[in-house]
Amino acid sequence: MDTYVPQRILLGPGPSDCHPEVLKAMASPLIGHLDPVFLEYMNETMERLRRVFQTGHSLTLAMPGTGSAGMETVFVNALEPGDKVVIGIAGAFGERMADVASRTGAEVIPVRAPWGGIVEPEQIRSALRSHSGVKAVALVHAETSTGVWQPLEEIGGMARDCGALFIVDAVTSLGGVPVRVDEVGIDACYSGTQKCLGAPPGLSPATFSPRFEEMLERRTKKVQSWYLDLTMVRQYWGQERFYHHTAPITMVYALHRALGVLLEEGLDAAFRRHLVNGRALQAGLEAMGLRLFAEEGHRLPQLTSVWIPDGVEDAAVRARLLKEYGIEIGGGLGEVKGRVWRIGLLGHSSRRRNVFLLLSALEQILGEAGCRTEPGAGCAAAEAVYRNPAIIR
Amino acid sequence: MDTYVPQRILLGPGPSDCHPEVLKAMASPLIGHLDPVFLEYMNETMERLRRVFQTGHSLTLAMPGTGSAGMETVFVNALEPGDKVVIGIAGAFGERMADVASRTGAEVIPVRAPWGGIVEPEQIRSALRSHSGVKAVALVHAETSTGVWQPLEEIGGMARDCGALFIVDAVTSLGGVPVRVDEVGIDACYSGTQKCLGAPPGLSPATFSPRFEEMLERRTKKVQSWYLDLTMVRQYWGQERFYHHTAPITMVYALHRALGVLLEEGLDAAFRRHLVNGRALQAGLEAMGLRLFAEEGHRLPQLTSVWIPDGVEDAAVRARLLKEYGIEIGGGLGEVKGRVWRIGLLGHSSRRRNVFLLLSALEQILGEAGCRTEPGAGCAAAEAVYRNPAIIR
Repeated sequence: MDTYVPQRILLGPGPSDCHPEVLKAMASPLIGHLDPVFLEYMNETMERLRRVFQTGHSLTLAMPGTGSAGMETVFVNALEPGDKVVIGIAGAFGERMADVASRTGAEVIPVRAPWGGIVEPEQIRSALRSHSGVKAVALVHAETSTGVWQPLEEIGGMARDCGALFIVDAVTSLGGVPVRVDEVGIDACYSGTQKCLGAPPGLSPATFSPRFEEMLERRTKKVQSWYLDLTMVRQYWGQERFYHHTAPITMVYALHRALGVLLEEGLDAAFRRHLVNGRALQAGLEAMGLRLFAEEGHRLPQLTSVWIPDGVEDAAVRARLLKEYGIEIGGGLGEVKGRVWRIGLLGHSSRRRNVFLLLSALEQILGEAGCRTEPGAGCAAAEAVYRNPAIIR
Repeated sequence: MDTYVPQRILLGPGPSDCHPEVLKAMASPLIGHLDPVFLEYMNETMERLRRVFQTGHSLTLAMPGTGSAGMETVFVNALEPGDKVVIGIAGAFGERMADVASRTGAEVIPVRAPWGGIVEPEQIRSALRSHSGVKAVALVHAETSTGVWQPLEEIGGMARDCGALFIVDAVTSLGGVPVRVDEVGIDACYSGTQKCLGAPPGLSPATFSPRFEEMLERRTKKVQSWYLDLTMVRQYWGQERFYHHTAPITMVYALHRALGVLLEEGLDAAFRRHLVNGRALQAGLEAMGLRLFAEEGHRLPQLTSVWIPDGVEDAAVRARLLKEYGIEIGGGLGEVKGRVWRIGLLGHSSRRRNVFLLLSALEQILGEAGCRTEPGAGCAAAEAVYRNPAIIR
């Protein structure tokens, strides 16, 4: 009947390792969801989230579910039957957005680009030209299925110009690369706790602009989800403190502490850490003769997708990494299932020691699988990045 | 930036105190949501949940949200636009069911009874006679807003006789009083982790009958919620292990351990503990001259609602309990807001010491507020119950 949990090193696409401070916070005894001390926690969590989202939006909170619940929150609140939404799709999470949005009865206008690349601004412009009265434009900032870093600024401007809400999935980007909600003009942005924020999965931080809130007021139909209905949830997180659901207390402790750890490090320092470790890993993988999947120039530092070399068996390599080294990396999703690996250096997992450990473990395992790699080339290339970070883009 | 959590004694309507073993489990490091060890945890959690729900239903799992997410899961999966559902309502959570169900586009047939009492089987029979083709009948087993214990058997039989699904909210009952899913013939039953199971809020254990699963196969429209879509979620908890959402890992650790603690104690022993402590508290409150709100014969042992004496200020008493004794009790909801208190002895909070502490603290506070009570009468009456548990019904 006992709980035994092995100690892994989580280098997949999430969850990532929690900082020990976050684990400790989770062992704190419960207090009530309307306890004055807990309301303080909520207020502080909102304030910390605003700093991390780089926003002044008053409606900034943590929805009581994982990142996908945040995604659903945005679409069920934004859309009513018949509304039009343009969704950029270049991976599994773009596809998920389209699925979630279509269940509201809205008309989804998909704008697809090949996996591994970005959605080009021109594609969105053309969709906006050929459809009138689009209510929202949605993009995935960090596509977790491909490791692609989608630029937001230009498309955000187009959305604003045609009066549409701009929706951004920042599940894998928040805390790892800058998410500048106010500067970019994002109206609805959601994330997850288990990626670069370094808390366990279970909450979805999200922020909504005043424009989004005005739209909420103008809805003609109740939000189709009671659980994710922002018109009610915001009265619990707001000054009214109306009881809605029972907040996942312990998860709020964890998020509160994880945001504390992140802000103590400083956002810029955290972005730099993710960037350097990610580029070191990518240089190492390339030096070992592996090919990166995401298009050059649009690679996320915190999540690296890499083609599995010919003749190498996906599951066997991942099983050996897990069993012999305690390392988890991720397999491919959807159309690249079995063909790519996804290696995350997210949050507390983004550490120099993990880069070297993974590169050396992979060198052993791939060598035995018959992939010729120059001994030590991966680690040497990574080391070169650390020694001369000026080469990093 | 530091997390400081005061040590409360949680005697409200939930969350309840966690067992120390549960808190410890939450500090375990994360592992991945597809890690073979985590899949074992999921399997064991399903197996433990089946024992607690007293069911053999294969589709028994924990939805990734609080109890209200479980409620929404049941209704969005069971209902399509135009379907008819009969909902028994005698409190805030019956009302919530109606709100949630109506958002699916189904026709809700509410069967209302006064707060503080049960929904009478005759009322449901009459609703089923005057409406044909009812797809589901829904009841709240333990109405958290009133402390009423709703009998299920007779109404369950009626639902079965007319071919309707029988839906039961067991948020506050599971683990505290028997929830006999198979014996009663419940097709969909959901609960919360933060009541009698003694884990933190954040998951909703739920179980679905083969009949419910067959109905899922016959749906003509996609489930309106992606996040709560059982046709997908069951493929993650089932043998397929298709990735859907990232499970709230730490919450699963907590639930797994909490169920372990409960099953080590034994279900019957836990029910007995809840019963004896609850009846002792109720005897004590009555001996202090307080009037219980829920109708006699239908009082839950684990949640006691009591009228606030005339002239006593609700908020002031609860604030003193919290500040001076660290005790949380709950206020009233909806139509009895400010007029009743709700005292929970749920899960690990259901302990003899808490009964005596609360009765003696209340005696002091109410005495100062001008309520004359015979000194020591409350504790004496509680003690009489412990000494002669044969008097308990």
